[in-house]
Amino acid sequence: MRVVVPYAGRDPKSRLSERLTESERRAFARAMLRDVLDAIEAAGHDPVVLATEPVSVSDADVVVDDRPLTPAVNAVLARLDGSDGDGPAFADVARDGEVAVAMADLALATPEAVRRLADAEGTVVVAPGRGGGTNALVVRHPEFRVDYHGASYRDHRRIAEEVGASVRVVDSMRLSTDVDEPSDLAEVLLHGGGESRRWLREAGFELNIRGGRVGVVREA
Amino acid sequence: MRVVVPYAGRDPKSRLSERLTESERRAFARAMLRDVLDAIEAAGHDPVVLATEPVSVSDADVVVDDRPLTPAVNAVLARLDGSDGDGPAFADVARDGEVAVAMADLALATPEAVRRLADAEGTVVVAPGRGGGTNALVVRHPEFRVDYHGASYRDHRRIAEEVGASVRVVDSMRLSTDVDEPSDLAEVLLHGGGESRRWLREAGFELNIRGGRVGVVREA
Repeated sequence: MRVVVPYAGRDPKSRLSERLTESERRAFARAMLRDVLDAIEAAGHDPVVLATEPVSVSDADVVVDDRPLTPAVNAVLARLDGSDGDGPAFADVARDGEVAVAMADLALATPEAVRRLADAEGTVVVAPGRGGGTNALVVRHPEFRVDYHGASYRDHRRIAEEVGASVRVVDSMRLSTDVDEPSDLAEVLLHGGGESRRWLREAGFELNIRGGRVGVVREA
Repeated sequence: MRVVVPYAGRDPKSRLSERLTESERRAFARAMLRDVLDAIEAAGHDPVVLATEPVSVSDADVVVDDRPLTPAVNAVLARLDGSDGDGPAFADVARDGEVAVAMADLALATPEAVRRLADAEGTVVVAPGRGGGTNALVVRHPEFRVDYHGASYRDHRRIAEEVGASVRVVDSMRLSTDVDEPSDLAEVLLHGGGESRRWLREAGFELNIRGGRVGVVREA
């Protein structure tokens, strides 16, 4: 299956700006993208980066669409009915009548987690993110469309119901962990295994173990 | 399998004290305990509450051990080698050479998530919590012991390795979500289905949808 990975290269991960400079955020976002693409490939699926501006990645197709996330993804989903859609060309993006969408900051994604997503039954499969977001989707229904604004998990369930899709929810800690905020960096250090974790460690981040949940500290 | 659910009735959920009074926290903690016990039972397993003081619950055995979490759980695990241990009596707690431990604040637990935990292979099975904790365990190795202080997920993996146990990690958003902090209440409203969600709604809590992740508000 094609797995579309939306990627915004400009000012990425702004909620990490307390802890990382802009150039560091760009580098870290690239490391997370790499981990997501690697997990998709190792799961036997075909990643394609849906980027807001040209980006160079190895082993993945890149299509540029400078629109916001929701219309850019919906242009992909519009291909499920066999039409050409109104977005940039995606060769065979909806082959076999299905396409997945996975966020580029799922730094804990593993091949097994991607397989659980892709193998789940349902004409719409949702992996919720912490805080009401939608971190990954499989869409097999030609009328389903996304709306990433606000608590999108609820909205996507509602939209799926409205078009008559059968919904399955994937219960994955790894797919629920999008890396947006400083506390999320601890999850990467704890559970990540790829470029993202390596990048953080090389940048001097370590776990900071206090009484309750762990955080991160950065060496001076 | 017996699933031991440690429960501290005194001053529970202190990190929610900004949003809930002490008596509310006690009631909410009880609602979460009920949901955890229900999920375990519906999964076909036998819950037993390991409480710091006497507590009345229906459909579950209760054993009182007023020691802190780590020694109280280790007294249970000591039964895996067939001995009587040094803790209060648990009838057949380690029958078939296995026992599970699940925290009482896993308000999103479902029978399916409990089944995935119980069915995972490995002589030690771990469901990590957000922030480095250990939310649920299955122990089938007589020498494994817990240490819940600090980043227990890492410590439990290390301890398992030291005693030669094979470790499996369960990738579950539901089991990773222990409800400790106000932001966790949003997860209960979004994904909970039992007493905990009902209690929060009756107490006036609603989702508060801002730009990024959702939070909660409480009606005056």
